[in-house]
Amino acid sequence: MDENLHIVPFKHKVSKKDRETLNGHKSKVIWVFGLSGSGKSTIASGVEQLFHKSGILTFLLDGDNVRAGLNKDLDFSLDSRSENIRRVAEVANLFAECGVVCVVAFITPLEKDRELAKSIIGRKNVIEVFIDCPLEVCEQRD
Amino acid sequence: MDENLHIVPFKHKVSKKDRETLNGHKSKVIWVFGLSGSGKSTIASGVEQLFHKSGILTFLLDGDNVRAGLNKDLDFSLDSRSENIRRVAEVANLFAECGVVCVVAFITPLEKDRELAKSIIGRKNVIEVFIDCPLEVCEQRD
Repeated sequence: MDENLHIVPFKHKVSKKDRETLNGHKSKVIWVFGLSGSGKSTIASGVEQLFHKSGILTFLLDGDNVRAGLNKDLDFSLDSRSENIRRVAEVANLFAECGVVCVVAFITPLEKDRELAKSIIGRKNVIEVFIDCPLEVCEQRD
Repeated sequence: MDENLHIVPFKHKVSKKDRETLNGHKSKVIWVFGLSGSGKSTIASGVEQLFHKSGILTFLLDGDNVRAGLNKDLDFSLDSRSENIRRVAEVANLFAECGVVCVVAFITPLEKDRELAKSIIGRKNVIEVFIDCPLEVCEQRD
């Protein structure tokens, strides 16, 4: 991929800080993780509503929606699950660059994938939230 | 991929319209295309600055930046170039959902790829801008 040598990220004239100033708040990624059926999307959606009511611009990325769009080419192999998370982290990072509070609701069971996400977004820009729900309750719901 | 059967997009409680109201403007995707060296990124960046100065929340997606992050797994085969554009269209669509004016600067030489992008984002949500620059000028710059 010699062409990669020609990839020089373009220096944007409107910065993250400029957009945070316009929005009137800092950006952040809130990464909500936990078992399927634990209530991640429901809680993330509630959090989003609360922020929105306070005049904070938010966006919710959840597994189901991203799987139906950006990541619909991916299957459910271990490699694809990691790639799924990598792409979501890259998109969440773009939203953070845009000055948005981005709420991510994703199973993310593997620590290595959560670490990858944090390395992409930047550790200080991420708040991790684990939804601690007993397996048997998740099984009943899912 | 039987698990796909279980993918039901989650109905978000904060809508695109809610976010447009919060931001004080409509969202839109402005898709700037043209040859390498035609000035897409420079013009897109200028447009972004103008919008920002008017209090409009914008985000610029350009080939170089996306290639260095979200799409860094892709090579420069024809298939990968189409996948590159598909993903950018999906991300632009998420930004439009967020109430942002998303400026995309991408070579996008093939009409079929521009059609794909419009089908993902929704034709009425996209303004296409072709940067009409003579090949010899582009070659000098690139």
